[in-house]
Amino acid sequence: MPSISDKGRAMPASPIRKLVPYSEEAKRKGRKVYHLNIGQPDIPTPDVALNALRNIDLKVIEYSHSAGNESYRRKLAEYYRKIGINIDHTELLITTGGSEAILFSLMSCLNPGDEVIIPEPYYANYNGFTITAGVKIVPVISYIKNDFALPPVSEIEKKITPRTRGIIICNPNNPTGYLYSKKEFLHIREIVKEHDLYLFSDEAYREFCYDGAEHISAMKLEGVENNVIMLDSVSKRYSECGVRIGALVTKNKDVISTALKFAQARLSPPGLGQIAAEASLETPPEYFKEVNKEYTARRNYMVETLNKIPGVYCPKPQGAFYAVVRLPVDDADNFARWLLEEFEYKNQTVMVAPASGFYSDPSLGRNEVRIAYVLKIEDLKNAMETLTEALKVYPGIK
Amino acid sequence: MPSISDKGRAMPASPIRKLVPYSEEAKRKGRKVYHLNIGQPDIPTPDVALNALRNIDLKVIEYSHSAGNESYRRKLAEYYRKIGINIDHTELLITTGGSEAILFSLMSCLNPGDEVIIPEPYYANYNGFTITAGVKIVPVISYIKNDFALPPVSEIEKKITPRTRGIIICNPNNPTGYLYSKKEFLHIREIVKEHDLYLFSDEAYREFCYDGAEHISAMKLEGVENNVIMLDSVSKRYSECGVRIGALVTKNKDVISTALKFAQARLSPPGLGQIAAEASLETPPEYFKEVNKEYTARRNYMVETLNKIPGVYCPKPQGAFYAVVRLPVDDADNFARWLLEEFEYKNQTVMVAPASGFYSDPSLGRNEVRIAYVLKIEDLKNAMETLTEALKVYPGIK
Repeated sequence: MPSISDKGRAMPASPIRKLVPYSEEAKRKGRKVYHLNIGQPDIPTPDVALNALRNIDLKVIEYSHSAGNESYRRKLAEYYRKIGINIDHTELLITTGGSEAILFSLMSCLNPGDEVIIPEPYYANYNGFTITAGVKIVPVISYIKNDFALPPVSEIEKKITPRTRGIIICNPNNPTGYLYSKKEFLHIREIVKEHDLYLFSDEAYREFCYDGAEHISAMKLEGVENNVIMLDSVSKRYSECGVRIGALVTKNKDVISTALKFAQARLSPPGLGQIAAEASLETPPEYFKEVNKEYTARRNYMVETLNKIPGVYCPKPQGAFYAVVRLPVDDADNFARWLLEEFEYKNQTVMVAPASGFYSDPSLGRNEVRIAYVLKIEDLKNAMETLTEALKVYPGIK
Repeated sequence: MPSISDKGRAMPASPIRKLVPYSEEAKRKGRKVYHLNIGQPDIPTPDVALNALRNIDLKVIEYSHSAGNESYRRKLAEYYRKIGINIDHTELLITTGGSEAILFSLMSCLNPGDEVIIPEPYYANYNGFTITAGVKIVPVISYIKNDFALPPVSEIEKKITPRTRGIIICNPNNPTGYLYSKKEFLHIREIVKEHDLYLFSDEAYREFCYDGAEHISAMKLEGVENNVIMLDSVSKRYSECGVRIGALVTKNKDVISTALKFAQARLSPPGLGQIAAEASLETPPEYFKEVNKEYTARRNYMVETLNKIPGVYCPKPQGAFYAVVRLPVDDADNFARWLLEEFEYKNQTVMVAPASGFYSDPSLGRNEVRIAYVLKIEDLKNAMETLTEALKVYPGIK
C-alpha cells in the first residue's frame, strides 16, 4: 500500500469540524445543540437569487468561461466601482468560493519555501492553502488585551526575512471580528511598499461593519496597486455560502494572466452558483440594512451577556460576525468537548470553536473560543444562557 | 512590483483555448464557426436535473458537508454498486468537478519531485494539476499507427525510477477516444502491484462506449484495491459540465481521510451542482440509449468522412467523443489558426484543437488534431465538408 504525501500528513483537520462527532452524539441523545461554531448564517438568501434558479431556462448546463461569465464579471466590476474600488471586468476572475481565490493567488505569486506574514489568530483554512502551495506562514501575534488590533509595524518588520513575499490580512477579521483602521492600513502600505511584498486582502466580510464604521479596502491603497490582491466571496454578503462563488481581484495584470492559467486547468467556476451570484447583485439595499441591524443587535446582546460572566472577556468587534472570547477555563478544547459530551441545561447545549485552531501555536488560544453570532436573537439568548450556566459548573474553571 | 511564481510561469496556457481570440475574430467577420475543439456536448441536460433546480425550496443556500451531501453520496455509491463497483458512501468524496478530484488525489498521494507515468497524448490539464502539486509527468508514448493502444509493459517499465509513485490513465481516453481492454488492464495491474504505485483512473467518459464495448473500471482490479483512485465527473454523463461536480473514489481509507482534509480547507463542493447531480441519478435509461446512439452515428459519420480525405487518418475510437486525427499538414497549430483567420467555405469554418497541446513534446503531435464530435449530425456534416474543402486549399499541405 503506497504511502500518502507529506503535505497530506501536514494538513490539519478542520478545527471547526473536529468536534462534529460529539455534537452528533449530543443530538442523538435528544439535546438541542446551538451552533456558534461555524460561520453559517441563518439569514435568508435574497429572493432574487433563488428566483433566478427557479426561472432557469437553460437546455444544457455548459461550462462557463474559465474567468467566469462575462456578464457576471461586468456587473461585479460595476458593484466594486460603486463602493469606490476602481476596476474593470478584466481585473478580476470569478473563483470557486473565496477559497479558490486564496489558493490561486498563493500559487500564482509565491514559490515553495516563501514566507507569508499573517496576523494571528487567523482563519484556520489559510493553513490548508499555504500547505498546498508549500508556503510557510510566519505569524505575528495580535492580543485579546488589545482587542486584536494589528501588531505594531516594528513587530511585523521583525518577521521579515529574505524569503518574505507577502502579508495576508482578513478585514473585517475572521476569527476576531476586528476591523482595520485607516492608520493601520497606512502602516501596512508602508511595509508592503518598502519590501515590495504582495498584500493578500481577504475581504469576504466587507458588508458586515457595525456602528457606522467604514470598511477600507486594500484595493484603495495608493502606490501599491500592483502589490494588492483582493480575495472576495459572495458567501456571507448574500448568505449563499453553498453557491461557492468568489473572486480574485487585482490591478496586477501578470497575476490575472497567471491565475487565469490555473483557472483554465480547472475549466470553469460553478455555473449555477454564478447565476445565483449575478442575480444577487440586484438585492435591494433594504436587505443589507436589515441584516446589519440584525447582526448589530446580536453582537450587542452577545458582548454584553458574555462580559457579565465572571472571568469572561469579549471584545466588541466592529465587523464580521465572530468574536474571539476569553473564558475562565483550563483548556478551551476540553471545555468545548465537555459542553457537547457531558453538559446540558434544559436539555440544550452549545457548540463553540476552540481558538487553538486559529493560532499557529495552539497554546496561545488555550483559554479562548471563537463564537459566531449567526443565530437569531431568541436562539442566541438560549445559547448564552446555556453557556452562562455551563461556566458555573464546568470542572476545569480556573 | 513583486514577481510571479515559478509554477505560475510554468503553467501552460490551455491548448484548447489559445485559439479563442481567432475564433472570436472569425465570428466578428460574420462567419459560422463549428466548435470541434472542446468537449462541450450539445446534448440536453436531463429534465430531472433542471426540474430539481426549478423546484428548489431552500431558504438559505448553505455550505454542504465538505465530503458532499450525505444523501447524494449514498445515492452515488448505489449508482456505482449497480455498475459493479463495490463501494459505500464513505469511500468517496464529492469534488468540484473531476478537476478537483485529480488535484486532491495528487496532493494527497504524491510529494513534490515524485514522478507519475501517463500514456501520451494525454488530457492537457493534467499538466496544470501536476505543476500545482510539483509532480513530474513521465510520458510513455502511444502511437496513432496503433490506434493509441497502451504501450507495451516493457515500455512502461523502462520509465520507472525510484521517484515513480503512480500512473494516470484516462479511460475511455481524452483525447484519443481509446478504450482500454481487459488484457491491457491486467498489464497495468501487474506494474502497479509490482512497484506498489498509485493508479489514478480518470473515468469521466465511462458511459461513452460504443459498439457494445465493455468499460472496465480500475476499481474492479483485484489485489490492488488500496492503490486505485478513481476520478469521476457528472459533466459528460449528464451533459452538465457547468455544475462542476465530480468524485474521488477509493477503497484506500488513508487517501479518503487525507483528501477530506483538503476538502475541508475549501469548505464544500458546489451546493446547487449537487442538487442537479443528485437529481440526475434519476435520469431514465432511455436517455443514455439515445445519447449512445447519437454519438455512435456522429462518430461513424466523422470517421468515415475523414478517412476518405487523402492523407488523413482517423482511428475509430471506441469511447468518449474525441478522436486524434492525423492530417496531411505541415503544422497543425498553423493549420488550426489558418482555419479561423483565413479560411471560409460557404461563410463557415471549423475550430479544432491542435494535438501538440496533448503531448509533453509538442513536436510529436505536429500533424495531429483532436476533434470532438459534440455537434449534431447536420452541423457535423457541414463541419466535415468545410474541413474537407480546407484541406484542398491549405497552403501548408504536405
